[in-house]
Amino acid sequence: MTEKNQQILLARRPTGAVEEGNFRLVETDVPEPGEGQFLVRNLYLSLDPYMRGRMSEAKSYAKPTEVGQVMGGAGVGEVVTSRHPKFRPGDKVEGPFGWQLYALSDGKGVRKLEDLGLPLSAYLGVLGMPGVTAYVGLLDIGQPKAGETVVVSAASGAVGGVVGQIAKIQGCRAVGIAGGAEKCRVAVEELGYDACIDYKAGRLDEELRRAAPGGVDVYFDNVGGEITDAVLLRMNPFSRIPLCGLISEYQYPEPRGLRNVRSFLINRIKLQGFLVSDNLHRWPAALADLARWVSEGRIKYRETVAEGLRNAPAAFIGMLSGKNLGKQVVKLR
Amino acid sequence: MTEKNQQILLARRPTGAVEEGNFRLVETDVPEPGEGQFLVRNLYLSLDPYMRGRMSEAKSYAKPTEVGQVMGGAGVGEVVTSRHPKFRPGDKVEGPFGWQLYALSDGKGVRKLEDLGLPLSAYLGVLGMPGVTAYVGLLDIGQPKAGETVVVSAASGAVGGVVGQIAKIQGCRAVGIAGGAEKCRVAVEELGYDACIDYKAGRLDEELRRAAPGGVDVYFDNVGGEITDAVLLRMNPFSRIPLCGLISEYQYPEPRGLRNVRSFLINRIKLQGFLVSDNLHRWPAALADLARWVSEGRIKYRETVAEGLRNAPAAFIGMLSGKNLGKQVVKLR
Repeated sequence: MTEKNQQILLARRPTGAVEEGNFRLVETDVPEPGEGQFLVRNLYLSLDPYMRGRMSEAKSYAKPTEVGQVMGGAGVGEVVTSRHPKFRPGDKVEGPFGWQLYALSDGKGVRKLEDLGLPLSAYLGVLGMPGVTAYVGLLDIGQPKAGETVVVSAASGAVGGVVGQIAKIQGCRAVGIAGGAEKCRVAVEELGYDACIDYKAGRLDEELRRAAPGGVDVYFDNVGGEITDAVLLRMNPFSRIPLCGLISEYQYPEPRGLRNVRSFLINRIKLQGFLVSDNLHRWPAALADLARWVSEGRIKYRETVAEGLRNAPAAFIGMLSGKNLGKQVVKLR
Repeated sequence: MTEKNQQILLARRPTGAVEEGNFRLVETDVPEPGEGQFLVRNLYLSLDPYMRGRMSEAKSYAKPTEVGQVMGGAGVGEVVTSRHPKFRPGDKVEGPFGWQLYALSDGKGVRKLEDLGLPLSAYLGVLGMPGVTAYVGLLDIGQPKAGETVVVSAASGAVGGVVGQIAKIQGCRAVGIAGGAEKCRVAVEELGYDACIDYKAGRLDEELRRAAPGGVDVYFDNVGGEITDAVLLRMNPFSRIPLCGLISEYQYPEPRGLRNVRSFLINRIKLQGFLVSDNLHRWPAALADLARWVSEGRIKYRETVAEGLRNAPAAFIGMLSGKNLGKQVVKLR
């Protein structure tokens, strides 16, 4: 094969905000699969907030990426050559292929994609980890009941956009919080939120009162920090907080945390951190429901697409500061 | 009746730390019971951290005490005269009798006390609200399994002292955190903790690592603030935090909150605020178990007793800053 592989490595660990200098693009040979392996030609790379955690050495739920290693991450691609009994050339696959044009795999964590007539990138978003995250967090932890109010931070993001729509399917009032007028417009007009608050407009407390006049029963939290502190003051007794992400924390070298913890006690709130990877038994049901809802037009999704592997770092940095709308992917071909 | 009633009123609301000037002692006539009422001569008054919340106007789970009203609170006493069909003179009772020598009651929230051969004040502690709080919070929310490590803040307090002993009965390792060497000595030597950390000695992080080398599975939190932030860094994956109180927060006019919220996500922690009053259905089972454990000598308890109603404010202020050891009561006769 004459084409070269390209890889993006972790060049050095960030302290606080991520910069392009934390990454390095290298060119290598395209590898050959050994016995039990296959070679994937990646088509789309997924960019997700959890990757920020892997860039640091701090204890987390997954092993950090080592300096000099290829950045980890999910991708969709096509099998090129295979010495694995279950994967054949031409198979479309989703798996942990990393920030690179070609990847070797032994099949671990890889799923073959059936053709639902959707763009392949959907398997990185609504029909992938973010969609299942939304499903498990909202339904299993949030346990919304019809008529309740569900508030979602990062409401137009890859996860948040799905959470709001599942909340509507459950008969809830869905209130989004997002950064900027355009994201809020999309949240209401395309994703079906009943209301969306642009926190950058600086009237979060007041707008929350107006958008959730009966208080908040479920707060699906992707961000933490000041936004969560504001929502905490509007939580109802016996309300629930599925804690999915703390993207606001990733920008600070020191933790900022939460101030309004009294609300947990006063309102007997249940907060639960969760990872979609702890809930593998829920994936089949979640993916079946999500695929049906997408095909019925009840769940819509948005993507922000960066072009070319070399633009992945800039797209990742942009996502961490909220520049994307919906699922952030990188188109590799 | 020639004896006068004495009452302690809320004179003005505190901002931050409570002072004696927030209270006023007044003398009034002893009231006469109307139809369906009875008169109680109070013997012991209970002092509890939740009362601090009632002194403020801020939204909480219970209506605040009005300025000029008698301070609310539980007491044990004896029925003097009765026009209520179910209560007779001589009955020993526990109920919401307030900071006063005599109280009228219609029986709501009042229980008659059977004679277990224990001092009456025990019904304000281990066999009352604090004991049931410990029971419900640890067993129902914390769900400790044998062999797990349970950490308890305010470990020698009215609630904490019972939590540690129930944890031991469940086969757990019990680690206390308390302020001062004497409290820690009592926690280990009298209350059966495996270890107790004096947070005032300034080596909390290091001592936690030593006392809970396998990490923390259940953290029964009575205090919040810096202590909770330290424990958060030692929590195990899928650990639980029954949030019972935030006594450290009560000392600040502005909330201090928590910094290490990343641990909730990384370790998929479940935190749940709770009130014993939401769990009335659990009282009979809890009181039966607690009475048995006390009578078998498996649960011991400590009290700090102030003498005389007029010393209640000072005792309350002392309790908020941790001067008490075990349950704080005021002996009224």
